[in-house]
Amino acid sequence: MAKDSQFVSQIADIETNFPQWYTDVVLKTKLVDYGPVKGTMVIRPYGYAIWENIQHELDRRFKETGHENAYFPLLIPMSFMTREAEHVEGFAPEVAVVTHAGGEKLAEPLCIRPTSETIFGNMYSKWIQSYRDLPVLMNQWANVMRWEKTTRPFLRTSEFLWQEGHTAHATEEEALEETMKMLAVYEEFAKTCLSMPVITGRKTEKEKFAGAVATFGMEAMMHDGKSLQAGTSHYLGQNFAKAFDVKFLDKDGVQKYVYTASWGVSTRLIGALIMTHGDQRGLVMPPVVAPVQAVIVPIAAKKEGVLEACAHLKARLVAAGIRTVLDDSDNSPGWKFNEWEMKGVPVRIELGPRDLEAGKMTVCRRDTLIKGELALDEAEHAIAALLKEIAENMYNTAKERLESRIVEADTLDGLLAGVAGGNFVRAGWCGCRACEDKVKEFAQATARVLDAQNTASTCVACGKKAEHTVIFARAY
Amino acid sequence: MAKDSQFVSQIADIETNFPQWYTDVVLKTKLVDYGPVKGTMVIRPYGYAIWENIQHELDRRFKETGHENAYFPLLIPMSFMTREAEHVEGFAPEVAVVTHAGGEKLAEPLCIRPTSETIFGNMYSKWIQSYRDLPVLMNQWANVMRWEKTTRPFLRTSEFLWQEGHTAHATEEEALEETMKMLAVYEEFAKTCLSMPVITGRKTEKEKFAGAVATFGMEAMMHDGKSLQAGTSHYLGQNFAKAFDVKFLDKDGVQKYVYTASWGVSTRLIGALIMTHGDQRGLVMPPVVAPVQAVIVPIAAKKEGVLEACAHLKARLVAAGIRTVLDDSDNSPGWKFNEWEMKGVPVRIELGPRDLEAGKMTVCRRDTLIKGELALDEAEHAIAALLKEIAENMYNTAKERLESRIVEADTLDGLLAGVAGGNFVRAGWCGCRACEDKVKEFAQATARVLDAQNTASTCVACGKKAEHTVIFARAY
Repeated sequence: MAKDSQFVSQIADIETNFPQWYTDVVLKTKLVDYGPVKGTMVIRPYGYAIWENIQHELDRRFKETGHENAYFPLLIPMSFMTREAEHVEGFAPEVAVVTHAGGEKLAEPLCIRPTSETIFGNMYSKWIQSYRDLPVLMNQWANVMRWEKTTRPFLRTSEFLWQEGHTAHATEEEALEETMKMLAVYEEFAKTCLSMPVITGRKTEKEKFAGAVATFGMEAMMHDGKSLQAGTSHYLGQNFAKAFDVKFLDKDGVQKYVYTASWGVSTRLIGALIMTHGDQRGLVMPPVVAPVQAVIVPIAAKKEGVLEACAHLKARLVAAGIRTVLDDSDNSPGWKFNEWEMKGVPVRIELGPRDLEAGKMTVCRRDTLIKGELALDEAEHAIAALLKEIAENMYNTAKERLESRIVEADTLDGLLAGVAGGNFVRAGWCGCRACEDKVKEFAQATARVLDAQNTASTCVACGKKAEHTVIFARAY
Repeated sequence: MAKDSQFVSQIADIETNFPQWYTDVVLKTKLVDYGPVKGTMVIRPYGYAIWENIQHELDRRFKETGHENAYFPLLIPMSFMTREAEHVEGFAPEVAVVTHAGGEKLAEPLCIRPTSETIFGNMYSKWIQSYRDLPVLMNQWANVMRWEKTTRPFLRTSEFLWQEGHTAHATEEEALEETMKMLAVYEEFAKTCLSMPVITGRKTEKEKFAGAVATFGMEAMMHDGKSLQAGTSHYLGQNFAKAFDVKFLDKDGVQKYVYTASWGVSTRLIGALIMTHGDQRGLVMPPVVAPVQAVIVPIAAKKEGVLEACAHLKARLVAAGIRTVLDDSDNSPGWKFNEWEMKGVPVRIELGPRDLEAGKMTVCRRDTLIKGELALDEAEHAIAALLKEIAENMYNTAKERLESRIVEADTLDGLLAGVAGGNFVRAGWCGCRACEDKVKEFAQATARVLDAQNTASTCVACGKKAEHTVIFARAY
């Protein structure tokens, strides 16, 4: 087996100019384009197909855990936002406001949802009467809007697509259980479908969701060693229940407020998988969500029988549930290799007269770029097994990288050196906001999650006793 | 087989108060609720599940006809709307306008998309360079907003969910072929999945889409004999191509404007299926999109083995791909019969000790309310076959009704009598706007579609030569 030596030169260098590499890759592979309004994106078919696959996988998991989909309105009365004090403080500066509609000025301005806790709360107060109505386990797939100053496709745009789960429970225990259950669903999904290892844990007060009692997040390490928040699950206590008067008559005959939870992931996951797996040639798609899992490139396509054999193989693979494209365009094989490597297709199959004669196909893996031969008559099983192997290898590679780049520090200088070198840094923290701010100022790093195990002895900033061990990192 | 005689009394009379019947049914079955902002709706899980099934069926058809999904931004610069003269005239009065975002007043107001021809046009002008780039065949699933004075859940709300296809072609012929192809896809879908017969045809200038060269629509007859526009497909000519400068270099080396088409259906289809099939007991769900296709009601549930047998049957049906619910709640069987009939579940299965002893199940069809017995060991095939039979029977019943209620008229009095009696009226039309307006004023009826065959001799309004034969009706 030999390394393939094609090289895509028009993409910026991934090691020295990662931001430009990202922009080059997402635009050149036609995942996305800039919309006409500043900060908006157009998700093009190749990008949207990833989102459809993500939706399909997550939606199944949500339904298996008892959730139902619904759809709540885009527009929320501005007065709703102000009912939960922390919530309005967090989101009011980012909302887009509708002031006119139908040719008239509105009596009350309406905001485009930045998130929907308030409007779910409003409806739940109407629907929930008794403990018999609980739990309520709903999710919605929707667009949301948060007006951001600095934007990048998939990572931070004024409008993005996401899912938001909103659940109501009779007890604190059940709501907390839901919060942790969905965090685990996200983690398993990231591993299985995105081949992406994450670290999970509770967020600090500073980093938590505006209105939550506690936020739990999952963080992934990007190619440059920075962290990307890839999903969050919030335990909201009775904060929104009290703000929207969501009460139920319990078994004991007492009126009580419900406990709620919410959880979400977004099109940001597409950015996450690009920056986790990409290399100098472009995208490297995790097989489970790849829009195209296998591409067939005919070799000496004009020779008798080649195109027919390629079409037949494609039909077999499609019938076996493998998303397959046959590139029968007029471009040269070399051009096609570059193009489909840039697009990150996990498996490339080359089929020419010699392969056909030998009953073989030449197969090149995108993750390792290693070429080999497989028997043509076992194509369905062989390609399916290879896709599985690629998914596992991509996960293991990313996991080894993540684990090798978590370092310890017990001084601010050590922390700075760690994050500047592209690492996550495990360090002690006394728990006070001043020290958290000091780390941010000194090292441009934030507390990503609290480690479940507090193994540190002293606070990295003030030297006092460590109440928590924190994973600090620079972050997107 | 005997008619079941349960009766749901809390729903308004379908014959004498159809509007209230509709409101009662959609609220009581928890399909939908009113949102806090006037004119908005919350689509509840039972309603959203219908939409998911509709999406699933349509999306497959779109992909089979070569279309790809994408996602374009919600917010459109107001200046885009004004580029196509008819388009702005039609939509400007209905748009919701964002004037502030991120705490600042925007330099240019943005409108929430009422439809997306303009923003697709804007991006297509960037993406399309050569005939090699054509055709472009895209669709998006999205929310849109049209500020309406009078609203009703599913039928007309300020925000609704839909899909909008937007395609660009090298020639007029291809764009027209696409327009008609998608109209045919909608018609087949309505028949197969909603058991809903429609009439299709070209719209008049007055009724066409603002900015189209020609609009083709499908119209369905509701229980009260009024028409509901259930889907439209527009041939847009070069109107939007010229407004957004979408040009390509053709094979002959000449720069040309593309020809475009657009087509859409919305959550209005849920209103359509409710008002096509519903009866005094409530909903009657077309099997293909029914959220629950079969409900199992245990009889003498406390008798040994009954619940276990019900659970076993449910597992078998679910494994066979039949969406099945087991109602093992504490309510009485009679209460359950009412509830699930109101919810329109196509098949009810009653299973008690006697059935089990005889190896049978008692089955009640929602469409005919006829009860019968089927062998328990053939449940999968028997229920699947019954669902198919119900879908066909519902279609045939609705089709016979539609056909029996299309009447002819050659005078305005005749036309008025026809539509007042709950019919569609086929009548001649000279083609002038004044006569179309006269029909509206005299009979509160509009031209729904032009009949493909012009069989009328004179205009129903002015008596001059008929240029078209029109299907007139009162409409939602």
